[in-house]
Amino acid sequence: MTLDELCINTLRFLAVDAVQKAKSGHPGMPMGAATMAYVLWDRFLKHNPENPNWIDRDRFILSAGHASAMLYSLLYLTGYSLPLEEIKNFRQWGSSTPGHPEYGFDTGVDVTTGPLGQGFANGVGMAITERWLAEHYNRPEHKVIDHYTYAICSDGDMMEGVSSEAASLAGTLKLGKLIYLYDDNNISIEGNTDITFTEDVAQRFKGYGWHVIGPIDGMNITAVDSAIRIAQSEKSRPSLIICRTVIGYGSPNKAGTGSAHGEPLGEEEVALAKKQLGWHYEEPFTIPQEALNHFHRAKERGRQQQAEWQNKMKAYSNAYPDAARQLELDLSGDLPVGWDSDLDSLFLPEDKPIATREDSGRIMNIISPRLHSLVGGSADLAPSTKTILKEKGHFGIENYRGHNLHFGVREHAMGCIAGGMARHGGIIPYTATFLIFYDYMRPPVRLAAMMRQRVIYIFTHDSVGLGEDGPTHQPVEHLAGMRAIPNLTVIRPADATETVEAWKIALENRLGPTALIFTRQKLPVMDRKELAPASGVQHGGYVLWQASPSPQVILIGTGSELHIALEAGKILQKKGIAASVVSLASWDLFDAQPEEYRKSVLPPDIKVRVSIEAAATLGWKKYAGDAGVAIGIDRFGASAPYKTIYEKFGLTAKHMVDEVEKILKEK
Amino acid sequence: MTLDELCINTLRFLAVDAVQKAKSGHPGMPMGAATMAYVLWDRFLKHNPENPNWIDRDRFILSAGHASAMLYSLLYLTGYSLPLEEIKNFRQWGSSTPGHPEYGFDTGVDVTTGPLGQGFANGVGMAITERWLAEHYNRPEHKVIDHYTYAICSDGDMMEGVSSEAASLAGTLKLGKLIYLYDDNNISIEGNTDITFTEDVAQRFKGYGWHVIGPIDGMNITAVDSAIRIAQSEKSRPSLIICRTVIGYGSPNKAGTGSAHGEPLGEEEVALAKKQLGWHYEEPFTIPQEALNHFHRAKERGRQQQAEWQNKMKAYSNAYPDAARQLELDLSGDLPVGWDSDLDSLFLPEDKPIATREDSGRIMNIISPRLHSLVGGSADLAPSTKTILKEKGHFGIENYRGHNLHFGVREHAMGCIAGGMARHGGIIPYTATFLIFYDYMRPPVRLAAMMRQRVIYIFTHDSVGLGEDGPTHQPVEHLAGMRAIPNLTVIRPADATETVEAWKIALENRLGPTALIFTRQKLPVMDRKELAPASGVQHGGYVLWQASPSPQVILIGTGSELHIALEAGKILQKKGIAASVVSLASWDLFDAQPEEYRKSVLPPDIKVRVSIEAAATLGWKKYAGDAGVAIGIDRFGASAPYKTIYEKFGLTAKHMVDEVEKILKEK
Repeated sequence: MTLDELCINTLRFLAVDAVQKAKSGHPGMPMGAATMAYVLWDRFLKHNPENPNWIDRDRFILSAGHASAMLYSLLYLTGYSLPLEEIKNFRQWGSSTPGHPEYGFDTGVDVTTGPLGQGFANGVGMAITERWLAEHYNRPEHKVIDHYTYAICSDGDMMEGVSSEAASLAGTLKLGKLIYLYDDNNISIEGNTDITFTEDVAQRFKGYGWHVIGPIDGMNITAVDSAIRIAQSEKSRPSLIICRTVIGYGSPNKAGTGSAHGEPLGEEEVALAKKQLGWHYEEPFTIPQEALNHFHRAKERGRQQQAEWQNKMKAYSNAYPDAARQLELDLSGDLPVGWDSDLDSLFLPEDKPIATREDSGRIMNIISPRLHSLVGGSADLAPSTKTILKEKGHFGIENYRGHNLHFGVREHAMGCIAGGMARHGGIIPYTATFLIFYDYMRPPVRLAAMMRQRVIYIFTHDSVGLGEDGPTHQPVEHLAGMRAIPNLTVIRPADATETVEAWKIALENRLGPTALIFTRQKLPVMDRKELAPASGVQHGGYVLWQASPSPQVILIGTGSELHIALEAGKILQKKGIAASVVSLASWDLFDAQPEEYRKSVLPPDIKVRVSIEAAATLGWKKYAGDAGVAIGIDRFGASAPYKTIYEKFGLTAKHMVDEVEKILKEK
Repeated sequence: MTLDELCINTLRFLAVDAVQKAKSGHPGMPMGAATMAYVLWDRFLKHNPENPNWIDRDRFILSAGHASAMLYSLLYLTGYSLPLEEIKNFRQWGSSTPGHPEYGFDTGVDVTTGPLGQGFANGVGMAITERWLAEHYNRPEHKVIDHYTYAICSDGDMMEGVSSEAASLAGTLKLGKLIYLYDDNNISIEGNTDITFTEDVAQRFKGYGWHVIGPIDGMNITAVDSAIRIAQSEKSRPSLIICRTVIGYGSPNKAGTGSAHGEPLGEEEVALAKKQLGWHYEEPFTIPQEALNHFHRAKERGRQQQAEWQNKMKAYSNAYPDAARQLELDLSGDLPVGWDSDLDSLFLPEDKPIATREDSGRIMNIISPRLHSLVGGSADLAPSTKTILKEKGHFGIENYRGHNLHFGVREHAMGCIAGGMARHGGIIPYTATFLIFYDYMRPPVRLAAMMRQRVIYIFTHDSVGLGEDGPTHQPVEHLAGMRAIPNLTVIRPADATETVEAWKIALENRLGPTALIFTRQKLPVMDRKELAPASGVQHGGYVLWQASPSPQVILIGTGSELHIALEAGKILQKKGIAASVVSLASWDLFDAQPEEYRKSVLPPDIKVRVSIEAAATLGWKKYAGDAGVAIGIDRFGASAPYKTIYEKFGLTAKHMVDEVEKILKEK
């Protein structure tokens, strides 16, 4: 056995042993893909195990996240701060080695993967970011940003639609530094891929404009080595290296079958596999010293590589101090001083009614010249979502300096790409589409929330208020589902002044993504001299207005319906019923407030409550209470001018007033 | 102007006028795609305007649903029961011509479209169904099922990942009777598709195994005619006809630009376009009699075609009476007498604990031999979702008679295909994947609910109870989002006996889709001698057990956590606190019960309530009440053996008991 082979077997059996000890996991892929992973990590990957956050490292994505044991093994073997003990604790409570790779444990995992296709598309976001930073900051004699984005993908990744979306865009954008190794093992859980996946992947990717290499023998060291070299030499197309492998390679009874995929081999079969591959160590988790020494060279190499880069940065800072400062600021994620000045006086009550999507567009265009790292775009709806950053150029069209991305009609990839951009660092990404199409991009929103990434999702056309396009385009259930996602801040502002606050919250939020929910229809700008200041949105909910200091009734609204609640409050006032009108723009922010504050907004003794929102009522009882009524839409929408729909659906001040009077009568 | 050209202009301007009058809609695509639509409908489409439900009609899907005005115009012109008045009422309240085509208005729309990519993938489901029925029922001399599935798709359809998934599967399955016309107009909302979509669509589809024709001039009648003929002659590959067109064709100032896409041309531009195309009728909605006569031939032709088919059916019934009876039953959607016999005695309390996914698998395999039309499959997780119908064959593998479909790792396409199968008729489709991957397939679930189609979605691995795979695979927020969807029945049974009821409800539900939520982990079979009968699930919720006829406390659970609630109830009993334990397996079914029933299960005067569910608590306050406590998971999950997670997350009887005691103390 050569030293290379010894190292590959070390990687292979460390993963197999981890799965076996956990009695749970996926041994098959590590056994087949160990060669390509080893060659990539040993001979190509630029990284510094002692600093997993070094910005100019190559990125590595295990898109086939089920092979997590292989990634953890690589991290341990190359000297990241992931002790062997943690590999022995694979998939156990409190370990830093969960079932699928998770960013956030400081182990060196670049991105959380597992749901197939996500990593594939995240990588496109990373490559976009690398290119954007390189274009902005590199100078002919100073290449301070210059790295590859690698991924290992599986058959499943290739089947998921999101990969197609991302691949097509990557081809269009000519992202030459994207290099993906496709572990083509012909096996999926239900059997041979012949039954579901006979397509010619090479031809398909050539159609996308990719540089396709192979199929090669993915278990041949030389073949993988030379394929990666060829991929690196291609500058203007992303590369796909098709690596034929055998799932469960080495296992005499399970190799090449689906049964090697998702469950431990069993102790007997582990022993047989070790025997077959000439692995003579009986003790599980054995790491031959020779192999460990070889893997550990990554530490010294990484140290040197980063030191060289730091010298480069020093020279760069001397030559281009302004650019270096800006680069540092971009990478820090900090907001520049004064980024939000003047926003508070941007909108005035005497302005004409304006849709919150328009407010948002204006706000973005005020912030954008001050906040260099704000970069994003829409899934082919920019004119409607109002998300174009003016005079900021278009990425990948004339050059790669533009701040405006064009994702095409690809919401799912858009979400993943934004997540990848945030994970790369240097950019604060935003996405934009209609709220209904959130349904196309839920997996990446969830993963960004899990990774606590600063991504801003703009969702416009947020209710039946979009009118004529009809129920296929009118969200009903979307807010409820979104609000239930941990770590995601959801804000549905009611007017321009609340929209300003929403944007402030989104940009200042470094603990997770924020979803901004905007209307298509126009809304008056609220008069903050008469009403409470919009800064109340920072607390998620606040008393907008009350008819008396001791109201009998609470009316609650969000977004466009807050105006209806306010109107109802004033009608009730005329009827001698004192109401408090509450804006509940963000449930999660409100729920995170101290109890005292929450009680000041929704005093428990005021039980007569009516809420209104042009969406499913699910979840509203928490705020409306046992005695209260939640007005909403528990059906699909309708195609008509929006004012008609509001009227027909009972989204009116009159309805709120009627409900209040009914509750009062019943009391 | 030839008669064909006159008809095409009639179609074009009827759509343009409808959009103009509505002051809302999409004129550009009808102007460019009118030729291909006309040629297809006039020369090829087998349909009977007087009977839009004729089972052997060709299916037509306008995947680019924004061109709805064109479809409505086609329906009106060929004599469907869609009066001109309704076209004039385009996008208005109460009309049968909503903004995007909707099934359910009896106008002849085959499937609801609008969200891009959905129709593309629905069509694959229709073609699968046609093939399956043909294989089962046709005899050499009797072709009773024999029709094409056509669609018109746009650039946006091609970009959406779901189309890639569906296309790859259609190629694998060699669905030769699928013929798609791709309206390749090079324009999307943000501009020329060059900025986002430079891929070679022909090469990509060849990679999928499709028969690609063109690019042809999609506005040339002869070219479209001959392309469709060539497509029809190809028997073993789906066909894609790439039709180059000009968006907004005829509009002197807007043709070929994004501004023709999504807003009315404006009266002036409409006039200019009419002039440019030699349309001399000033009055909007003018239908030249000559054109109408020509279009109306479809009625006579359709009548004849259906009459011929009925003769075929008569001969078939005589020759193969049993097959004909079975075909009729399949098409009716009725359940055969006795389909559910013995199910109630299938599981016994003395059985070993068993996961509800396993229960479901056993139930399906009892029903399947009795219910011929039950056909479905999984997105490459059949061994885990337990959804294989034994001895029922595998569609597309050895032949096309199999009841088991293999969707590959393509959840989104799976959802759409099932929707298309249901809309075709003759099959009761089911899908299966893990609940977490519901996120990949939300759009088709929503559309099936909107269309009220009988689709059964099986979602297993329904909570942190799946254990080691960790938070990337553990649903938290999914139930909340799902429960907020109108017309969708969501059932989360607690054990084998409730699973039987869930399956009964799903199959008997003809008013919409049903989502069945099953565990990965094993659960005891509840002893129904001691507890209330599982048939209570039919009401969505029921009292499972109570310590006394006048309980002080209500404990509510669903699924696997109902066992915890029951355990807590018994602990409280020992402590002298009488609890009622409620199963709330389906919120929507429960909410639909008469108030009296609901109050009998959750008496309003019992305010001490604790609910438990291994999911987000959002929505639970409605049942737990102001004074109650909802135990759940408002964070992401964890990777560990599931019993550890339950313990660490407080999903325990002890926690329920503690909360009850706390509330009682505070009272």
